[in-house]
Amino acid sequence: MRSAFAGHGVSRGLVLGRARVREPHALEISDARIEADRVEDETARLHAAVAQARDELISVRQRLDGDYASEVGEFLDLHAMLLNDPDLLPHLDALIRDDRCSADYALRVHRDRVAAVFERMDDHYLRSRVEDLDHVIGRVHAALHESPDDAAQGLAGEILVTNLVAPAELAQLQARGVVAVVTAGGSEHSHAAILARSLHLPLIVGAHEALLRINEGDAMLVDGEAGEVVVEPDAADLRAYHKRRKALARERRALDRLRTAASRTRDGADILLYANAQSHEDVTEAHALGADGVGLYRTEFLFLGRRELPDEEEQFLAYRDLVLGMNGRPVTIRTLDLGADKADETGLVMSGEPNPALGVRGVRLSLSHPTVFGTQLRAILRASGYGPVRVLIPMVTAREEIAAVRMLLSRQAERLREEGHAFRPRLPVGAMIEVPSAALAFPGFADLLDFVSVGTNDLTQYLLATDRDNEALGDLYSPLHPAILRVLREVIAVGRRRGVEVSVCGEMAADPRYTRLLLALGLEAFSLHPNTLLEVRQVVRATDLAALRRRAPALLRGRERSAILRWLAAVNAA
Amino acid sequence: MRSAFAGHGVSRGLVLGRARVREPHALEISDARIEADRVEDETARLHAAVAQARDELISVRQRLDGDYASEVGEFLDLHAMLLNDPDLLPHLDALIRDDRCSADYALRVHRDRVAAVFERMDDHYLRSRVEDLDHVIGRVHAALHESPDDAAQGLAGEILVTNLVAPAELAQLQARGVVAVVTAGGSEHSHAAILARSLHLPLIVGAHEALLRINEGDAMLVDGEAGEVVVEPDAADLRAYHKRRKALARERRALDRLRTAASRTRDGADILLYANAQSHEDVTEAHALGADGVGLYRTEFLFLGRRELPDEEEQFLAYRDLVLGMNGRPVTIRTLDLGADKADETGLVMSGEPNPALGVRGVRLSLSHPTVFGTQLRAILRASGYGPVRVLIPMVTAREEIAAVRMLLSRQAERLREEGHAFRPRLPVGAMIEVPSAALAFPGFADLLDFVSVGTNDLTQYLLATDRDNEALGDLYSPLHPAILRVLREVIAVGRRRGVEVSVCGEMAADPRYTRLLLALGLEAFSLHPNTLLEVRQVVRATDLAALRRRAPALLRGRERSAILRWLAAVNAA
Repeated sequence: MRSAFAGHGVSRGLVLGRARVREPHALEISDARIEADRVEDETARLHAAVAQARDELISVRQRLDGDYASEVGEFLDLHAMLLNDPDLLPHLDALIRDDRCSADYALRVHRDRVAAVFERMDDHYLRSRVEDLDHVIGRVHAALHESPDDAAQGLAGEILVTNLVAPAELAQLQARGVVAVVTAGGSEHSHAAILARSLHLPLIVGAHEALLRINEGDAMLVDGEAGEVVVEPDAADLRAYHKRRKALARERRALDRLRTAASRTRDGADILLYANAQSHEDVTEAHALGADGVGLYRTEFLFLGRRELPDEEEQFLAYRDLVLGMNGRPVTIRTLDLGADKADETGLVMSGEPNPALGVRGVRLSLSHPTVFGTQLRAILRASGYGPVRVLIPMVTAREEIAAVRMLLSRQAERLREEGHAFRPRLPVGAMIEVPSAALAFPGFADLLDFVSVGTNDLTQYLLATDRDNEALGDLYSPLHPAILRVLREVIAVGRRRGVEVSVCGEMAADPRYTRLLLALGLEAFSLHPNTLLEVRQVVRATDLAALRRRAPALLRGRERSAILRWLAAVNAA
Repeated sequence: MRSAFAGHGVSRGLVLGRARVREPHALEISDARIEADRVEDETARLHAAVAQARDELISVRQRLDGDYASEVGEFLDLHAMLLNDPDLLPHLDALIRDDRCSADYALRVHRDRVAAVFERMDDHYLRSRVEDLDHVIGRVHAALHESPDDAAQGLAGEILVTNLVAPAELAQLQARGVVAVVTAGGSEHSHAAILARSLHLPLIVGAHEALLRINEGDAMLVDGEAGEVVVEPDAADLRAYHKRRKALARERRALDRLRTAASRTRDGADILLYANAQSHEDVTEAHALGADGVGLYRTEFLFLGRRELPDEEEQFLAYRDLVLGMNGRPVTIRTLDLGADKADETGLVMSGEPNPALGVRGVRLSLSHPTVFGTQLRAILRASGYGPVRVLIPMVTAREEIAAVRMLLSRQAERLREEGHAFRPRLPVGAMIEVPSAALAFPGFADLLDFVSVGTNDLTQYLLATDRDNEALGDLYSPLHPAILRVLREVIAVGRRRGVEVSVCGEMAADPRYTRLLLALGLEAFSLHPNTLLEVRQVVRATDLAALRRRAPALLRGRERSAILRWLAAVNAA
């Protein structure tokens, strides 16, 4: 029977598919014992499953090398850590050999032993570690029981209906054929939501009724934009679906025609659209879309998931390839932005800070490791011999840090000159504006900078003192707060006055719903992942900038989110 | 032989004492076995030691009920949790009974078992939990071996020299006679530093040479203001010491004469000095010092360290006593400011947030528990029947929250009216300005408020995105950043323009070094712990406000901390 209900649509797309229901706590493991002659086989099976789970993690990381790799890397790192525990295999082997546990049972016993200690501690943080443990054990368990075919084609055309989905799972689910995900829990601004958008995988979160209303195998319509779910759609639903799909295809074709169009407003203002690009595919795509350059190239991926630091040559080659790939358009390389929430395995980052978001991150970490930082700066300088390169410093808090980076940079340039390397003598230097004090003190260090890039995700998080991944705060985290708008307007105005280019590289810049808001605040440069670049260009081209800017004072008078939302709806409809 | 070296002086005071060196990892436990007939005695000894450790924790909490109780409560809560583990005693008993371990050995075996699992996880967070575990085990071990005399008089006149000191230890050390503490590690802005100042216990941190240069029993001179340590002082040192002590005593007497003086500048401007008061002693002292009222009364202590929520009557009585104690001067009651970093045991707070400082805290928590919050508002309203009361809302992020609190407040007032209770009909409502967005959007909600109180500690933390307890960031956390000064000046100016009283209640307000800086920015109301109120009044009385404010533009032109420090040195010398 037809039924319909709603959640929060966080990644759009309109799909029709078959429900695959995954109940919470689905992991069940039998406690069978085995005969002595099975010990060897059972041990081998379990080793193979652990190896497969490790391989899957590696392959997930590789699939994630788009815009958000570093954002979700932390989950993968934790899971890899649990799988790489040197005690894991010896413990499992002993359970099979000495206690004649089946592989399944050994897994459960091991899981229970590790989990018991955490759970006794009566602390939610440790409990959440148990969830990660279960996730890893679940992967190994799945590998034990899955035929290679399952993994390859098990979920084609299916819509996963579950309680919560881990960001790290999404890419894998999509690879296995899942066409949409509907979760009963989850928050709008979670990493899972960001990642789903980057994968173009429709995702609805907070659909509280999902697990009650949907049965395995039900036909479902999912509208990831409106957040609507229709179970067992009727003939009218299906007609509407097909009509809407056709309209979407038309819109897509219209967008594709914009690949060679200028990013120019109706009244003739040129807007810069840089690409956030990381992989070779991103760079190719950025080029094909006519991006004005790379506005954000994250260097963390060179450091994550490995035990040795990348040397100068490896970094140089990666940066040079990027520069060559953009063929003369400027490339903005952000120096290492690791922190306890994006920890590497090389030991550079101390994990375990009580508030990693307020800890030793970005340039703070780099300045405390001058040798590592110097190597990176040398590699960037050398890449500048091949085309225009800009250096972007993350997590700047104060003028002193920029001065310190500039000094290190000239020292490395001096050395490279002596060694006879080719490089651009005056590399443009920029700072991320993501720490509130940097936004507010920008007039006091604009003289040291050639450009700034506003990281609206972190800036919003700090200005609102609201962790964007904390589901319990879902409603509070929003860039539509008068303080955020005021800070953005001011940074843009200072930049214009002082001749320092200001771009925005956070989620806001990539979301066409916010394009006009940013234009109204005076923004003239956006940096965004190629996957929404054409949509943003479409909005830019449909905008009368002078008329829009006349509406800016009304925007800035908004005292509550509801007022800002009304303004936004009005200008987006114009 | 005489030697001298320096660290960071974080809590001033000049003392001469005898070194008591506590090496890191001093906990050593023998692995003796016992005879069968000792099992009962050994079990009883160990139970008594665990009970004593628990009692000590409770007594530390009671000694901490001053200004900073809630700030350090988190450490105590974690330690209490470890001691209250229901498995602890049965495990220890089994080790003594079945394995014939001595009490010491049983402690070590238990510690190692719990620690092993954590340490295997290769994660710094868990490692830091092991440190807490060691601290607790160390307390039990100390209790096993200490005679009651040790605890009472063991450290009289001694200066503790160690690697690090836990905030929770300080009060206890002082109670046992310690006159100063010198640590090789530690950071300037840690909770230990704040607490030491509140206890008037001289503390020097970051004295890296301390453990190398000082031997047990050495005579030592400690200057907690300059951060200087002299080991085995010579005759000249001692003469200088006695001279300085006399001068300090004179200064103290001069201060005492200010108890009845007005807080008025040389040119006749009256400055409000409110007290941050919590205990009965604080209120008495605030009264005796002529404070203009209570500017900050924290209500967390009613909720911490207990398993049931305080009911309306209990809260009402606490608030009423406070109001009566201030005898007609206004009393500012801050509504519950709990969060994952100040977690209660009643289950109100969800612990385990990845960034507790950016989590569900203060009014966010209160608005998500409207019944609990309503009870608190009723108790506050009822207390207003006995004298002037103001309500202060912590952790405000947006206008919507203030509107919601105002609505809840009028609803409770309506009910109280119907029930015939006495209360003031229009209670002044204020907001803490500690979230950057609240500071920046203040003009947009000033109409809803009667006063604001700037929490410079958290505001600095968020504006700089710098955790003030993270030692690795020691240098970065400082209120002397151009952005902080700008925000303070602006909030003060908006308040004046809109007729909303602005006070500062953070550490800055209590530190006489910053009094003139705040006056220069336009501040006319300070809220501070009674223990530095007279010093701040002394600075106020010695200040020519008009001349000082003429120097404000030079302050606001400072682009680096060094420039701001120079300004500060110049005006403090004037």
